[in-house]
Amino acid sequence: MLYTEIPHQRPLTPLLDAIDHPAQLRQFAKDQLVQVADELRQFILYAAGQSGGHFGANLGVVELTVALHFCFNTPHDRLVWDVGHQAYPHKALTGRREQLTTIRAKNGLAAFPAREESEFDTFGVGHSSTAISAGLGMALASRYQNTARDVVAIIGDGAMTAGMAFEAMNDAVAHNANLIVVLNDNDMSISCSTGGFAKHLAALWQKGQSVAIQDDGTAYIQDYPEWSYNSRLHEAATDAADNLFKAIGFDYFGPFDGHDVDGLVHVFNALKHRQGPRLVHIYTKKGKGFAPAEADQIKYHAILKINASASSNTAPKYSDVFGQWLCDEAVQDDRLLAITPAMCEGSGMVKFAKQFPERFFDVAIAEQHAVTLAAGMACEGLKPVVAIYSTFLQRGYDQFVHDVALQNLDVTFGIDRAGLVGEDGPTHAGAYDYAFMRTVPNIVIMAPKDENECRQMLHTAYHYPGPAAVRYPRGNGLGVEIQHALTALEIGQAEVVLELNPQHEEGITILAFGSRVSVAVEAAQNLASELDVAVRVINMRFVKPLDEKIIQSYADKTQLFVTVEEHAVMAGAGSAVNEYLARAQIVKPILNLGLPDAFLAQASHSEMLRDCGLDTQGIEKSTKQAWLKLVQWV
Amino acid sequence: MLYTEIPHQRPLTPLLDAIDHPAQLRQFAKDQLVQVADELRQFILYAAGQSGGHFGANLGVVELTVALHFCFNTPHDRLVWDVGHQAYPHKALTGRREQLTTIRAKNGLAAFPAREESEFDTFGVGHSSTAISAGLGMALASRYQNTARDVVAIIGDGAMTAGMAFEAMNDAVAHNANLIVVLNDNDMSISCSTGGFAKHLAALWQKGQSVAIQDDGTAYIQDYPEWSYNSRLHEAATDAADNLFKAIGFDYFGPFDGHDVDGLVHVFNALKHRQGPRLVHIYTKKGKGFAPAEADQIKYHAILKINASASSNTAPKYSDVFGQWLCDEAVQDDRLLAITPAMCEGSGMVKFAKQFPERFFDVAIAEQHAVTLAAGMACEGLKPVVAIYSTFLQRGYDQFVHDVALQNLDVTFGIDRAGLVGEDGPTHAGAYDYAFMRTVPNIVIMAPKDENECRQMLHTAYHYPGPAAVRYPRGNGLGVEIQHALTALEIGQAEVVLELNPQHEEGITILAFGSRVSVAVEAAQNLASELDVAVRVINMRFVKPLDEKIIQSYADKTQLFVTVEEHAVMAGAGSAVNEYLARAQIVKPILNLGLPDAFLAQASHSEMLRDCGLDTQGIEKSTKQAWLKLVQWV
Repeated sequence: MLYTEIPHQRPLTPLLDAIDHPAQLRQFAKDQLVQVADELRQFILYAAGQSGGHFGANLGVVELTVALHFCFNTPHDRLVWDVGHQAYPHKALTGRREQLTTIRAKNGLAAFPAREESEFDTFGVGHSSTAISAGLGMALASRYQNTARDVVAIIGDGAMTAGMAFEAMNDAVAHNANLIVVLNDNDMSISCSTGGFAKHLAALWQKGQSVAIQDDGTAYIQDYPEWSYNSRLHEAATDAADNLFKAIGFDYFGPFDGHDVDGLVHVFNALKHRQGPRLVHIYTKKGKGFAPAEADQIKYHAILKINASASSNTAPKYSDVFGQWLCDEAVQDDRLLAITPAMCEGSGMVKFAKQFPERFFDVAIAEQHAVTLAAGMACEGLKPVVAIYSTFLQRGYDQFVHDVALQNLDVTFGIDRAGLVGEDGPTHAGAYDYAFMRTVPNIVIMAPKDENECRQMLHTAYHYPGPAAVRYPRGNGLGVEIQHALTALEIGQAEVVLELNPQHEEGITILAFGSRVSVAVEAAQNLASELDVAVRVINMRFVKPLDEKIIQSYADKTQLFVTVEEHAVMAGAGSAVNEYLARAQIVKPILNLGLPDAFLAQASHSEMLRDCGLDTQGIEKSTKQAWLKLVQWV
Repeated sequence: MLYTEIPHQRPLTPLLDAIDHPAQLRQFAKDQLVQVADELRQFILYAAGQSGGHFGANLGVVELTVALHFCFNTPHDRLVWDVGHQAYPHKALTGRREQLTTIRAKNGLAAFPAREESEFDTFGVGHSSTAISAGLGMALASRYQNTARDVVAIIGDGAMTAGMAFEAMNDAVAHNANLIVVLNDNDMSISCSTGGFAKHLAALWQKGQSVAIQDDGTAYIQDYPEWSYNSRLHEAATDAADNLFKAIGFDYFGPFDGHDVDGLVHVFNALKHRQGPRLVHIYTKKGKGFAPAEADQIKYHAILKINASASSNTAPKYSDVFGQWLCDEAVQDDRLLAITPAMCEGSGMVKFAKQFPERFFDVAIAEQHAVTLAAGMACEGLKPVVAIYSTFLQRGYDQFVHDVALQNLDVTFGIDRAGLVGEDGPTHAGAYDYAFMRTVPNIVIMAPKDENECRQMLHTAYHYPGPAAVRYPRGNGLGVEIQHALTALEIGQAEVVLELNPQHEEGITILAFGSRVSVAVEAAQNLASELDVAVRVINMRFVKPLDEKIIQSYADKTQLFVTVEEHAVMAGAGSAVNEYLARAQIVKPILNLGLPDAFLAQASHSEMLRDCGLDTQGIEKSTKQAWLKLVQWV
């Protein structure tokens, strides 16, 4: 069935309703599975409309998910979903159907598979390309434990470009491991991506033949219908005679139609007659079965709740500020090149990619390569800008240290999604970048108080002749005016943004970083009226180099320092302030406010900040407590 | 010529002596190159004997290096050497011949290519698998700049297994970049490694045919002599009909004999008639031309100076302590599995690998995969131990955060080469692991004061039911007695190791971490006799969780805290202490001693520690200065 609307009412799903455990699915006759899949698709449409969230990928794996749980004895057999964008049907079939509408909400289901949520979620995910490694670990464990068990890793064609997937395939062959990899190859990545791997997948289609499999597991070659997936042909460039998976040592089967649940059931059952590393290449369509999503797969990668009230925040997103800055700087300086590891839209680079196609480099999901590619470009006197989410820079950390910072190369990092990321949950939090970056020599690290400062900081970082990073949060700015003119800040110079009750000689000095500056200002205003002491807020701007002079200049007037940041307290920006105070022998009380030492479950961004005491009230309360404790002493 | 001894005297090298710039090499007739190569090999033998250092790989690329500098217009054309173990011949041909005997020494040549050392060193290296990314960056830069230039990335078969090499190949095809990759496939990796990639390379040999190239760049198939490299055949397993490089979209040529300088010159010149991503597969022999090294390639991977005095330190290496512990723990607990990313010897695991082959997993150079493989195993109730160098854990950082720590999985990390690493220089320093690890929730981090504590800490980490790491230095222990019995430490419990001048109520409390404990004790003894105040040293043992109680218990008796660690001061263990003092409102002076905010050039380990003020005298001096400054105030 092809649907055209997202239902507001829960659809009738009599077969699906009988499945609270996949063992019940396995009781159905094979010819009922088409109806199960159809009901599941309707239900996913409805539930995603209620919760918002990832969409297209989930619709694309409905038949695959039904076939996997039908053929394999889950949870004894292990399904390892890569990335987890596509786990809604899996969650619906494994006892979590009625909670699916709560996905991504506080206390609701996690957006991704999560081990603590269900025994069917064998491995927690969020970042891509881990499934083959994790699945191989499980397969080798089963062999060591003498436990007969199938392990199936399901991974998309996009995620396959990340090197660790290749590392894992190499190792699976080393061990001749009993591991099935399902390569879920969907139209979208093929048409959007032009890397060698994508071309290779297209070439495998172009052959017009499938490595099919008989009931007993014997492989044979079969022509597939002419109608199927001709759209891929234009991309093919690599030699179709050479099969990458076979070259690396996997048994290869496919391509198969990933929406043919009967065909998939046949393939998975037949595969059990074989041993060793096996790869099943299937093609699916993102958004399958929902007409608008099939027509526009990028738009329907994720959706908002259908009843979501329009956001009242009309300020531009930080990503868009980044994208606009990139275009403006590129006009002024033709040495600027921009690199993204597969996050063109998310990083706000669509406009730049259109305006400067020869200066735009989408390297696919390949963070390690993205960073070192930039280093190579910088060696030639160009000025690359790497746009990357904080959480994904963790993937390119060694390259950041060893290839960029150590050589003091002129690479600018636009670090998006820094701090808490709300509904995407702990896998995507950018809570550690100050710590892992500031310990590294040569780097300049900035965090803007608002979207205009973000623009000016990006300009500053760009013109700094060495590695420099600006880290900014997910979501919208504050709505301040954005100056078109690009003005570099003085490196390492903070600014005093508020001084209250100056008649008092001494008081509280709040050193605020990035997104917490505006909130600290509000907190300071409340504190000044309540406590009747001097209260000032300094927008620190630079985590490295720290503005030590400004701290020193206020030391005598300060009875209590407070640092505030949207980053782990441990090893964060406040910790850098502590280090300076220690070195300068400024022996004063200091209160470090930031994220606690815990992975924080999903909730809205504002709920999370409130729970961490990093909203206005939280900062006010903690500061007041610390102050009163001090005063008690005196 | 096959040599059998390392010459003590500088050999006569008349042709080589005439080459101070590769342009001079290019003046030679082609038929003189064999003699140039022979002289170069003799010279390398001599120079490596003087300096010590990497050896086998350098002998293996003598002909390749001559051919590359002969065919390409260096430095205008770019040679990008991967890892850099094999850069001695390159350095010798590019104006640094007479300095080659100083390699690895303080103020001598760097062990690896280094941009600041020569314009011929296009990209600094040390870690593997970056060359294709960096070379691609240069190739794309040249295209953008409209500069005609060849870029050649030279990478070994071992380094090719790291995912980022694959990411870069994928992207090179996306851009149809003008990039030549020389795959330097040497016997050793083939025979030691059994991954899919190694098997594939063996399969390419097994064909008995080469994709050869005519003068005009046309490819053709050619049988190669029967004698050549039959030793590889036993390994072949993957389908020789499928060529991985062609599948990904590279033009493939080879295999060729990498010691046939004439042949190489022909191939490189012919390749210039082609465009796009081209891969040349050559086979070389590690240690080529030196009989003992050809016979034992592992032993001759690197050598000591021939005149080196025998080390006076007979204490076991930390690596060996790790390896012995691994064996002992494995006997007691059959859930223990051990993983290394291609560092079996370096990590001290040879004995374990022999004793427990079915529990030993060498995953090749693949740090990302190594960590997530462990996570997958831990999900099945096994207890994997990942042995990894501090600097290489940077490559698996996201996996450490996202796959292990976030899921709170029971994985033990044995982190070797933590702190400074002496002659290997800044690329291999393990100076950031406290910072990038301690900011992450759930992890337990320990550092031993000596080799016995290392053993007990490994046992402690292993039995801690979550992620735990022990970081220990390169080289030998202190020579203390190692207790065979394995006794778990109390998590988060430090120990007082020294209390001097206890008659004084107040004084100095030194909180020492890991390798700096014994040195801090010596410094404290000197301080106590000089200053006549109470001086105590606490072996902190745990960076996380910190023993806050012990710090608090000494707070009243402390006028000056000192922290000492072999890690960057920024965000390090001392910084963790600062954070605690701030939180507990213990307002006392604190001196944080550790590594400065700079990449430190090679020298001996002890020279480097002295220069950083982290030897006994340095700690004593800094502490005394801080103390006297305090006393002045009072």
